Amino acid sequence: MNSKENPKTGSAPTQGLLRRYFPILEWGKSYNMQTATNDLVVAVIVSIMLIPQSLAYAQLAGLPPEVGLYASMAPLILYAIFGTSRSLSVGPVAVTSLMTLAAVAPIAAQGTPEYLGAAMALALLTGVILIILGFLKLGFLTNFISFPVMAGLGTAVGLQIAAGQLTPVLGIPSAGGTFLVQVISLVKNAGQINIYTASIGVPVVIFLLLVRKSMANLLTKAGLSKSLAGILAKMGPVIAIIITILVVSMLGLDKQGVKIVGKVPAGLPGLALPPFDFELWSKLLTPAALIAIIGYVASISVAQTLAAKKRQHVDPNQELIALGAANLGASLSGGFPVAGGFSRSIVNFEAGAETPAAGAFTAVGIALVALFLTPLLFFLPSATLGATIFVAVLSMVNFKAVVKTYNYSPSDAIAMALTIILTLTLGVIAGLMAGIGISLMMYLYRTSRPHIAVIGQIPGTQSFRNIGRYEDVVTSPGIASMRIDESIYFPNARLLETQVNELVASNPEIQHFILNCSAVNAVDASGLESLKSINLRLKEGGIAFHLSEVKGPIMDSLKKTLFYQELKDRIHFTHYDAVFSIDPKLAKQTMEHIKA
Amino acid sequence: MNSKENPKTGSAPTQGLLRRYFPILEWGKSYNMQTATNDLVVAVIVSIMLIPQSLAYAQLAGLPPEVGLYASMAPLILYAIFGTSRSLSVGPVAVTSLMTLAAVAPIAAQGTPEYLGAAMALALLTGVILIILGFLKLGFLTNFISFPVMAGLGTAVGLQIAAGQLTPVLGIPSAGGTFLVQVISLVKNAGQINIYTASIGVPVVIFLLLVRKSMANLLTKAGLSKSLAGILAKMGPVIAIIITILVVSMLGLDKQGVKIVGKVPAGLPGLALPPFDFELWSKLLTPAALIAIIGYVASISVAQTLAAKKRQHVDPNQELIALGAANLGASLSGGFPVAGGFSRSIVNFEAGAETPAAGAFTAVGIALVALFLTPLLFFLPSATLGATIFVAVLSMVNFKAVVKTYNYSPSDAIAMALTIILTLTLGVIAGLMAGIGISLMMYLYRTSRPHIAVIGQIPGTQSFRNIGRYEDVVTSPGIASMRIDESIYFPNARLLETQVNELVASNPEIQHFILNCSAVNAVDASGLESLKSINLRLKEGGIAFHLSEVKGPIMDSLKKTLFYQELKDRIHFTHYDAVFSIDPKLAKQTMEHIKA
Repeated sequence: MNSKENPKTGSAPTQGLLRRYFPILEWGKSYNMQTATNDLVVAVIVSIMLIPQSLAYAQLAGLPPEVGLYASMAPLILYAIFGTSRSLSVGPVAVTSLMTLAAVAPIAAQGTPEYLGAAMALALLTGVILIILGFLKLGFLTNFISFPVMAGLGTAVGLQIAAGQLTPVLGIPSAGGTFLVQVISLVKNAGQINIYTASIGVPVVIFLLLVRKSMANLLTKAGLSKSLAGILAKMGPVIAIIITILVVSMLGLDKQGVKIVGKVPAGLPGLALPPFDFELWSKLLTPAALIAIIGYVASISVAQTLAAKKRQHVDPNQELIALGAANLGASLSGGFPVAGGFSRSIVNFEAGAETPAAGAFTAVGIALVALFLTPLLFFLPSATLGATIFVAVLSMVNFKAVVKTYNYSPSDAIAMALTIILTLTLGVIAGLMAGIGISLMMYLYRTSRPHIAVIGQIPGTQSFRNIGRYEDVVTSPGIASMRIDESIYFPNARLLETQVNELVASNPEIQHFILNCSAVNAVDASGLESLKSINLRLKEGGIAFHLSEVKGPIMDSLKKTLFYQELKDRIHFTHYDAVFSIDPKLAKQTMEHIKA
Repeated sequence: MNSKENPKTGSAPTQGLLRRYFPILEWGKSYNMQTATNDLVVAVIVSIMLIPQSLAYAQLAGLPPEVGLYASMAPLILYAIFGTSRSLSVGPVAVTSLMTLAAVAPIAAQGTPEYLGAAMALALLTGVILIILGFLKLGFLTNFISFPVMAGLGTAVGLQIAAGQLTPVLGIPSAGGTFLVQVISLVKNAGQINIYTASIGVPVVIFLLLVRKSMANLLTKAGLSKSLAGILAKMGPVIAIIITILVVSMLGLDKQGVKIVGKVPAGLPGLALPPFDFELWSKLLTPAALIAIIGYVASISVAQTLAAKKRQHVDPNQELIALGAANLGASLSGGFPVAGGFSRSIVNFEAGAETPAAGAFTAVGIALVALFLTPLLFFLPSATLGATIFVAVLSMVNFKAVVKTYNYSPSDAIAMALTIILTLTLGVIAGLMAGIGISLMMYLYRTSRPHIAVIGQIPGTQSFRNIGRYEDVVTSPGIASMRIDESIYFPNARLLETQVNELVASNPEIQHFILNCSAVNAVDASGLESLKSINLRLKEGGIAFHLSEVKGPIMDSLKKTLFYQELKDRIHFTHYDAVFSIDPKLAKQTMEHIKA
């Protein structure tokens, strides 16, 4: 429990600037041998799981395998210093790796130093953007990617990556690009399948699917604890790697066209600078911004979910800085863009990581592999790495979510479906942009036609509700009560005027009109004009205009206006007060009425 | 009172389709000799006032004077058939005339048949767009022009038109274009001022300003009724026209470089078709759409204001159709785009127009002028028309509004100021687009960071309010109540999660968390995900999640979800009910507590 860090909700942390930007100073204080031992055990487990992931995502991004290892060291250490989540594990993940491929492939040829340089520059820009967003506290910008758009993007990206992995898994050459382009290309080249590659790739895919589906259950039944079983079930790729390395080297399958990783340079990454090239940077700026946003959205939701389980605190703006630092670290140690990964963080959490130090220890574990074990990876077939990715990304694909979302909110489902379709056909950037745009337009459309209800008093209470929805609601003929379920602002202000006009024009007996503002969260200048017009027109029609349940922040602004001066005696604290001030007898009678 | 037309608020009119699209069938039924006589008197007054206006706005649009008269006949008659306002007077107005000039000037040279043809085509497209919007009931789209943007546009357009009229008023040649371009050009050419023109223009401007400022007051003091005095004060331009025609013709000033109207062809407009030219039409489409929207926004607000004074009903969608028909009429009778004018409608209303027939009679009055009085207009100096416009548009300029808006809502004032600056420097279209864009962005920014308050019970009531704003508010240590003042939707959903996490992380004694949804008007799919996450995280922390005061439409959607199944016993009708269900003793004690 770290409840003492933040004694007041919503207030700025009382700790100094240093502690705010270096959370390590906070948890470091109470770090001791016991925590260290614990974190060390976690690190061993996580680093074993991360090796195949790091190699595979490097392959997905079109980079040599050692780059995947490099991208898994510095970021972990930097996140341990700057991050506020105790469980988030940072490194190469599927979406950002794919986006790296999409951004860098048009600029340089795979396997060239220019390609690696561009990937490093991309990580640098991603890091800088994240840090700027963090210092300017602009993390909320990332909220404009709605849940359905993010989910739709996940499905489409999952499909696109899965399609792409059919190339290493089956040995079919493919053109790359969007899902659509890849599928066409795979169908065209289906005849060129490499039977040896496929005989490794397909069984590994099946094996990994089975492990994912039933291993945890089997192990639990065998008496293991649930979390240990879960962790072991995630070791499937490690087993697959060991077995396929043995098979390929023993049968000499690399001579049958089975692509292998080959010589992986041993050693640690040195400090490297990405090329300083303005033209290159300007080409990478948009992809970097998108990687920053997507990576951040994915990370923060994992971090918050895990933190909540232990009632821990995650600072969204500091997370931007931490993720930015991690990306800078990746760039300067010859890596590519990183983010907080879902499965790796879960393993970290389930294994019992207590502080970010577990991440730093994991980096040491990976460093040991990079130093001493790379010769063992020589015969590792690309098919195995492809199969690992293929199975991992399948869990991102979720078409049922469209149907489920449709049942709850059709407009959200439309945004989701369009995001999927456009990402599959035109690519990630087009899909994402369209998704954000559609979500915003639909929201604006909805708020421009708000729900407006005529309300009456519920007998036996001081509550007022929609007369069209509740029975036995009591109204007085001389009093009209209306509730608008939206802020009064320019897209709907005139609609409110029209509705009030109609209500009043069709009910000549009305002498008092009360607008219930319990659901009005803001009144902009257009809204104020409309309220003024309504007041003026009602006055000319001999009707008194009242307001009820106006929220504090709105009152603060209204008090500066002449409109308030004129209306102030008719602004009531509750709707009951308003009706009571006009017809006390009826209001009281209704409240005291007990339903039969 | 036409309250019987619409017995139920918000429901579709019960009258048939015919009556809906032809409001004339409604008021025509009860039309009699008395109403006719009354409307006839109104028509005489209004047509006298409209003559100078029509000629002046034609000049502003760069068209010959008779086109102004043509545009004032057919539209009035068509509006009488289709319009729902009893008082709106339709014809050429300042903004749309300026926008016509801006749209047509780059396409053809002033004075050519191509120029007139383009203006006619512009009116045709404007009409078609308005009618389509009307049939598709898309009138709400025009609401996206906020009040501050419309006001800012008015100020900028007023300044631009006023600057442009210095050319006829002072006889200084000018380049035309945006305000900025015109001012630079006027300063450059200041030496070329025509002293004879200026000796007519400047005195007329001063005369009209004086008339506008004090005539109505003087006449009221002299014993006239207020409305008659108001109408006579609007006759200033007619007096100025008569006097300056006499002066120019008697002194032969037209030979000293004073521009006169010259020969105005007598007679009525024939049926004319604008050129059918796809390239021309595609160039005019954007300006036509903007003229349609701006013209409609100006018209509907005048119509609603005047209708409310007599508790009459205006149908916003039918108004689109009526204004569209008026523009089609203008186009097919050789005119240019029209809209409902503010000052002309006020005169119509004050003179006592009872039905749209007054407008039709006014059209006859203008026809008589076109038939018989055009020779009298030969010596009418352009300076007088320029002065009429100059004085008329000055009332549109209102910089104080920026300050006033700033006091109430700074973000609205920023949108307003930017609209003014961009319209003055880059033109109407740029200013309008920027204004709409800025307004939307500021709104989205605000809703993305909603006001979230921790609330407690006000002693002596069942009401719950912000504990930071109200004193003596009662809370129980085991119960946290929070109210979010915004719909829970993608730009703010994660912020709510963060705030709940923090509240709970910093108050270990919390066992129940109640989210008050009285100000939540919608929960989109992202919002639902956040509520689900909050529920899950609270549950894992051993806290029960409650909802209170969820609105009906949201409940309808929630009921389809598993989330609802899990939570349903913890969704409470009022916040008081929620607290009562957890701690009945405290809730009841607090309610019954009488403040000292």
